[in-house]
Amino acid sequence: MNPKKKISMAVVKRLPRYYRYLSDLLKLGIIRISSKELSDRMGITSSQIRQDLNCFGGFGQQGYGYNVEILYNEIGKILGLGNNYKTVIIGAGNMGQALANYTNFEKRGYKLVGIFDVRPEIIGKKIRDIEVMHMDEFDDFVKKNKVHIAMITVPYEKTPEVATRAARAGIKGLWNFSPMDLKIPYDVIIENVHLSDGLMVLGYRLNEKLREQKENKEKN
Amino acid sequence: MNPKKKISMAVVKRLPRYYRYLSDLLKLGIIRISSKELSDRMGITSSQIRQDLNCFGGFGQQGYGYNVEILYNEIGKILGLGNNYKTVIIGAGNMGQALANYTNFEKRGYKLVGIFDVRPEIIGKKIRDIEVMHMDEFDDFVKKNKVHIAMITVPYEKTPEVATRAARAGIKGLWNFSPMDLKIPYDVIIENVHLSDGLMVLGYRLNEKLREQKENKEKN
Repeated sequence: MNPKKKISMAVVKRLPRYYRYLSDLLKLGIIRISSKELSDRMGITSSQIRQDLNCFGGFGQQGYGYNVEILYNEIGKILGLGNNYKTVIIGAGNMGQALANYTNFEKRGYKLVGIFDVRPEIIGKKIRDIEVMHMDEFDDFVKKNKVHIAMITVPYEKTPEVATRAARAGIKGLWNFSPMDLKIPYDVIIENVHLSDGLMVLGYRLNEKLREQKENKEKN
Repeated sequence: MNPKKKISMAVVKRLPRYYRYLSDLLKLGIIRISSKELSDRMGITSSQIRQDLNCFGGFGQQGYGYNVEILYNEIGKILGLGNNYKTVIIGAGNMGQALANYTNFEKRGYKLVGIFDVRPEIIGKKIRDIEVMHMDEFDDFVKKNKVHIAMITVPYEKTPEVATRAARAGIKGLWNFSPMDLKIPYDVIIENVHLSDGLMVLGYRLNEKLREQKENKEKN
């Protein structure tokens, strides 16, 4: 891959999905796969797949397909999964605790090293062997442990303030779970999780289906 | 909008985002907006916006732009937000409780009516005024209350079994939080939430930025 070439965000957003499917193929012992087969599995058109994977230098070969392991490793590298970024969670409520217990992140090379909150009743409690610390200790902890990423699961109205504090302490990437497009005037990368978007897509698909069923009934 | 026309899933997946931005514009009292302005706000190219919104019959007008309220209502209708689908949560662990407390879903017209689990210590506990019920009551409850959607937040290995049970009980849409592409041989719509995908995209952007910073340093 040419490291200077920018990959479009639309492609980047599909890479984790390719990565997951390739991981499954590897587990099944599948050595190579055509764009057609990958297309059938993933529900993406094969021309889309070829276009996406060509973006970073085409690992496919005419008549052979893709070598699953090479492609898997290459996408992993592009996603920077070997970088072992350290993460902390701010907000040890239900969502914070759910994230702390989500071991899939560690498999992807993201190591959870700290959990923070301000509520006295939860400070000192252990979640997956990590003791919840008070936010008073946050800045020192981030600097000392070279933490790159903070997952923010605090109440909506507290989110911009907490994000600002994290950026000031030296955090480079924020993963925000409050339903807002978080923007703060700091040089920090922000990814917002919009859970309700997924529910709305589900609702759309449900509508379409129920409408089709109704139309088919009326025809008969 | 021509109801017969199929909108591509790529466009559908962007609709909730348009809907959120339009909602913000409405709150700000903005009556109309050009595709250029919307593009600047959303970080999507204006040609993409025009293309997306043309899919369902173009509410824009040359030289005028889009009427925010009409567009907002229209997208809401397409997403089926007025349908008041009833939802249940299966799995009252941290993620289930976080979802139960996520009031944004109700704002979008999805009404949570029941929470289910099998662990004796949590049955009967109240989460946002909803008592956690035992799965033994699930089938009857779904039928009696005409529940459309189940959010599944049970342990990974239990997910296919629970999903199958939900589909058999008459659930039409499943929102799965286990890190798998859930597939079951039932006529039910499934949306999978892959939380780690977002984290990987954040990781990718972080890599790119740190690499650029390093390159700029080396130049100077």
